[in-house]
Amino acid sequence: MATPIGSTTWAVAEGYIPDGSTGPEPAMTSHETLCFLNAGDRDASVEILLYFPDREPVGPYLLSVPARRTRHQRLNDLEDPEPVPRGADYAMLVRSDVPVVVQHTRIDTRQAENGLMTTMAYPAAAP
Amino acid sequence: MATPIGSTTWAVAEGYIPDGSTGPEPAMTSHETLCFLNAGDRDASVEILLYFPDREPVGPYLLSVPARRTRHQRLNDLEDPEPVPRGADYAMLVRSDVPVVVQHTRIDTRQAENGLMTTMAYPAAAP
Amino acid sequence: MATPIGSTTWAVAEGYIPDGSTGPEPAMTSHETLCFLNAGDRDASVEILLYFPDREPVGPYLLSVPARRTRHQRLNDLEDPEPVPRGADYAMLVRSDVPVVVQHTRIDTRQAENGLMTTMAYPAAAP
Amino acid sequence: MATPIGSTTWAVAEGYIPDGSTGPEPAMTSHETLCFLNAGDRDASVEILLYFPDREPVGPYLLSVPARRTRHQRLNDLEDPEPVPRGADYAMLVRSDVPVVVQHTRIDTRQAENGLMTTMAYPAAAP
Repeated sequence: MATPIGSTTWAVAEGYIPDGSTGPEPAMTSHETLCFLNAGDRDASVEILLYFPDREPVGPYLLSVPARRTRHQRLNDLEDPEPVPRGADYAMLVRSDVPVVVQHTRIDTRQAENGLMTTMAYPAAAP
Repeated sequence: MATPIGSTTWAVAEGYIPDGSTGPEPAMTSHETLCFLNAGDRDASVEILLYFPDREPVGPYLLSVPARRTRHQRLNDLEDPEPVPRGADYAMLVRSDVPVVVQHTRIDTRQAENGLMTTMAYPAAAP
Repeated sequence: MATPIGSTTWAVAEGYIPDGSTGPEPAMTSHETLCFLNAGDRDASVEILLYFPDREPVGPYLLSVPARRTRHQRLNDLEDPEPVPRGADYAMLVRSDVPVVVQHTRIDTRQAENGLMTTMAYPAAAP
Repeated sequence: MATPIGSTTWAVAEGYIPDGSTGPEPAMTSHETLCFLNAGDRDASVEILLYFPDREPVGPYLLSVPARRTRHQRLNDLEDPEPVPRGADYAMLVRSDVPVVVQHTRIDTRQAENGLMTTMAYPAAAP
C-alpha cells in the first residue's frame, strides 16, 4: 500500500513572495508553499536550493518529510541558511533521497481579495 | 472511439479546504474538487487516500466513474470513512482500476471575491 | 523552423462555464478557453468531445488550427452539434491529426473581481 | 551540484496580456511572465517565437539565462523585433541551447483585485 510515488528532483521556475498582505495573519499573509507528498514507507530527506537572477544559489535548506505524510512548507518560514527575500524573483530546485511529489502554490493578498495560483513542480528525474 | 486515456495512479500534494466562505451556497462555498474523466468503455472503481502531516493516511474513499463519463467530486462531500477536515493541510493519492484523467481545483471564497486555482494531478503510473 | 510540437490527444477533466458574469462583455464574460498552438507546417483538423456526468459524450466539435498559428477557442462559442451548457460539469477530450499543444483556462467573473485558472491539458499520446 | 535540468523546447499555448490595469505600477500592471531556471553550469541562449491567430510567427526574441540563475522575463518588456500586442491572443515557443525549466504566469489587474494563474510550460523535447 506504500509505493514510492513521484520523483527525486523537482523544479519550480516562478518563485516570488509578494511584499505586502491584506487580511488576518497568518492565513491571509501573502505566501508561497512547497507541498510534499511522501507516499512511501521511508522518510524523505529533502534539500531545497534557491536560485536568483544576480547571485549564486543559496542553500541547501534541509527538511524531512516522514513516510506516509504530507508537508506543506511555506517558503516564508525558511530561515537557514537565510530567509527568502520578499518582493524578489527566485526559483527552486528540490532534491529528495526517496521519490516524493512536489506542488507549488502562491496566495497573493497585496490587494484586498486574494489571488491564487498552483502548479505541479517539474519532475526532472524519475525514480 | 472509447480508448482508455490517462493513468491509474495520480497524486495531488496540495490539499486544503479553506475554513470559511463568502457568497451563495453551495456554488460559492470554499471547496476543492477532484475531477475525473473516464474516456474508456469500462466503469472505473476509484480509491482515494488522504495524507496528513501528523497521522497515518485515511481511506480508502471509494467512488465509481462510469464509462464515458466525467465526475467532479467535491472533497468537501466525502464522508466515509470520515469527513475531510477544514482549514487543515492534506494530500491525495488516487488509484483507479482503469486509466482515467484526474485534475484538482480549489475555489477560495474566504474573502469577498473568489480565488481559483487548478492543476492536472501528477500521473504516477502509465496504463 | 516548423517542427511539429506536442501531442495528438489531450484531455481536460475540469470543465465548467460559470453561469453569471460581472463586467463589460465579452472580455469579462465568465468563460473557458481551449488554446491551441500548431507550431508545425501542416494545418491541424481538431475534434473535441465533451463528456458529462449523466449522459453519453457530445461531439465531435470540429475546428481547424492552421499551420504556424494559435487559436484560442472559447467553449462558450461552440454551437455545433449543441451549445455547451452553463453551470454544469463536463470534461473535454481533444484529438488532432497533427501534433499540437493544448492549454485550458477559465475566467470566473460571477463575483465582482475575476478569478483565473489555467493548466496544460493532459497529453495522452506522443507524436 | 550543477546538473542540467529540464528541456530545450517548451511551449505555452495561452498567451494574452490584458489591456488595462488597476493599482500601482509596475508591480500591479497586468502582465505575463516567462520564468526560466538554468540550474546547469553553462549559460543558456534562449529564443522565443510568438504565434498569432492570423499572421506568421514573430521572432526570434533573444535572451540569455546565465548558469545557476533564474530569469523572470515579462512578455510586456520584449521590444525586439516588435512589442507584444496588448489585448490580443498569442502563443509562445521557447528554444534553448541547454536544458532549462520554463513556467508561465499571468497577473490580470483589469478589475480592482488581481487574478493570478500559472502553469509549467509544455516540455516538447527532453535533453
